[in-house]
Amino acid sequence: MATHKLLLLPGDGIGPEVMAEVKRLIDWLNAQGIAHFETEQGLVGGAAYDAHKASISEDTMAKAQAADAVIFGAVGGPKWDSVPYEARPEAGLLRLRKDLGLFANLRPAVCYPALADASSLKREAVEGLDIMIVRELTGGVYFGEPKTITDLGNGQKRAIDTQVYDTYEIERIARVAFDLARKRRNKLTSMEKRNVMKSGVLWNEVVTQVHAREYKDVQLEHQLADSGGMNLVKSPKQFDVIVTDNLFGDMLSDIAAMLTGSLGMLPSASLGEIDARSKKRKSLFEPVHGSAPDIAGKGLANPIAMLASFGMALRYSFDMGALADKLDAAIAAVLANGLRTADIRSEGTTAVSTTEMGQAILKEL
Amino acid sequence: MATHKLLLLPGDGIGPEVMAEVKRLIDWLNAQGIAHFETEQGLVGGAAYDAHKASISEDTMAKAQAADAVIFGAVGGPKWDSVPYEARPEAGLLRLRKDLGLFANLRPAVCYPALADASSLKREAVEGLDIMIVRELTGGVYFGEPKTITDLGNGQKRAIDTQVYDTYEIERIARVAFDLARKRRNKLTSMEKRNVMKSGVLWNEVVTQVHAREYKDVQLEHQLADSGGMNLVKSPKQFDVIVTDNLFGDMLSDIAAMLTGSLGMLPSASLGEIDARSKKRKSLFEPVHGSAPDIAGKGLANPIAMLASFGMALRYSFDMGALADKLDAAIAAVLANGLRTADIRSEGTTAVSTTEMGQAILKEL
Ligand SMILES: CC(C)[C@H](C(=O)O)[C@@H](O)C(=O)O
Ligand SMILES: CC(C)[C@H](C(=O)O)[C@@H](O)C(=O)O
Repeated sequence: MATHKLLLLPGDGIGPEVMAEVKRLIDWLNAQGIAHFETEQGLVGGAAYDAHKASISEDTMAKAQAADAVIFGAVGGPKWDSVPYEARPEAGLLRLRKDLGLFANLRPAVCYPALADASSLKREAVEGLDIMIVRELTGGVYFGEPKTITDLGNGQKRAIDTQVYDTYEIERIARVAFDLARKRRNKLTSMEKRNVMKSGVLWNEVVTQVHAREYKDVQLEHQLADSGGMNLVKSPKQFDVIVTDNLFGDMLSDIAAMLTGSLGMLPSASLGEIDARSKKRKSLFEPVHGSAPDIAGKGLANPIAMLASFGMALRYSFDMGALADKLDAAIAAVLANGLRTADIRSEGTTAVSTTEMGQAILKEL
Repeated sequence: MATHKLLLLPGDGIGPEVMAEVKRLIDWLNAQGIAHFETEQGLVGGAAYDAHKASISEDTMAKAQAADAVIFGAVGGPKWDSVPYEARPEAGLLRLRKDLGLFANLRPAVCYPALADASSLKREAVEGLDIMIVRELTGGVYFGEPKTITDLGNGQKRAIDTQVYDTYEIERIARVAFDLARKRRNKLTSMEKRNVMKSGVLWNEVVTQVHAREYKDVQLEHQLADSGGMNLVKSPKQFDVIVTDNLFGDMLSDIAAMLTGSLGMLPSASLGEIDARSKKRKSLFEPVHGSAPDIAGKGLANPIAMLASFGMALRYSFDMGALADKLDAAIAAVLANGLRTADIRSEGTTAVSTTEMGQAILKEL
């Protein structure tokens, strides 16, 4: 059996609690001989800053480079609000994305039937919702230079951020999105602001070309990001796969997640390019939710998004789609049995802690 | 009685139809001796491009500079999808905003009780919703330089957009927002992405300073734009006034508008600085909805957003708050009587055309 090397980075807030449930699952898979994972653990975010004044250490970066997949919890919290900008918790995550070349961020927004009523949207608008947001993750305004604050004198400062996209960056993320659409309902919606941004003009042009050259069988549609956001809120089920840039993807995927009423349930995968020789790709898996410092350490956190993120690792990095399907089924079964962490409680359901939820899912498996 | 000079720019799509209802109202106000408006009309957007290959002419720009207020319909449509970038319909609107110095965009998102069921959100989430989004309108990534597409050879191009904010730009929009909050529920939420963008860092710092120096009586809160977007969808009533930059404001105000279920009803005002000598400010008023080319020319368009935008002109440019209140009341009364254009039809209501809706509101006045 192949050995897979995992780096676990629990991070801050509820990160360690939800990661503990993944660890429990991994130990069980190893013990049962179903898979063979070697795990290492590291610090990231505020936890890393507290230990060595940087949001990720060189040592941890080296381990991330060497791992077959990184499993990431969450970072940040008010405790680190005034640390130097370069050392803020988020910087550790951004460096992982950039240095590992994780350009493709896959964010499914799925509405679990058992939870449709938790959405602020009407049941009929979200029931059965299943969309996939493909967000470009290593370009755009997140990493473009110059990115500066300059003192102009006279009490005036000037802040600059730069959005940069090259053709190849748009091509490769478009291909990831078209490939996913082919395996789903064969429809791709590309979103940008070409009426205002030059990067939107190029984005639109390149996606259109990739479609014409390689994916004529997929239905392609373009929407402006602002009206796309409106359509997401108005009738999300019109979408199958959405492809968009780093900043629009940040906003739109969070909004899509919130529509489902299942924020604590949603996983994400960040993937690099496939290496021509080894056929492997770098990858990182993290829940869509944040570090939720207000509920950290109380056993209230929902571990499902974290476990489902590990499920995406099984599917996208280790070719264990069948096992991932079983994990998804176990999660659905436990929900159908009425077990709920505090974030998704409703009348007539059974309240459970983080650990109890993790154990119940494992038992179901 | 003071004479007020208005420039009417109907634009494209449904723009001319909804502007005709404003014209009807203006003529009536003049005839009744309630006010004295002098109106001129001009071309903008695709209509201007068709006439003279530019999305706004120098002559029309000069009229806009000379007017006391510009009343703007909507621009754009598939017909102009392939005109040169510099002449695209939106360029006319962007030039008006920039050259008139209209830095403050006020976008109320109000849920009309009669229309709460038209929202995709549950009634309890949006009923009674009344928030004001204050969007910075002449800075940020919309106008920053460089804004280019460069050919790199080898089939590669590079697109660049630049987000730029100076201290004074953030200060003046913050003041507009704090002043509005004082007249409302005294709460301001500022949104940016300080964890990723330097402009977000400066934005946060300047808003915090303006608050500490001048508006300590207003409750100030900061949210990251992505979680702010989530909160808008989850529980919009937590907000009173939201202040944010040009691009986030574009996305967030559209999403807020869609939440209300009343997109065809929502007006906006774009205001310049108050001139120290004349005490006047430049201003432009436009509906939040777009040009809706698919329904143009069919008498289906809802004129309420356009009429309510004119109402904002009465309030913010001509100090006719009482008349604006009467107009708002007339709109509410007509809705309560069950009259509906196609976009807001529901069972048991009476379908009316654009013109019939305009006439009914006028009659109510
Ligand atoms: C933590 C932050 C830097 C990050 C982002 O903005 O990308 C987060 O919001 C996300 O969506 O993963
Ligand atoms: C038409 C377009 C340029 C404009 C914008 O992006 O600002 C519109 O979406 C708006 O919100 O007024």
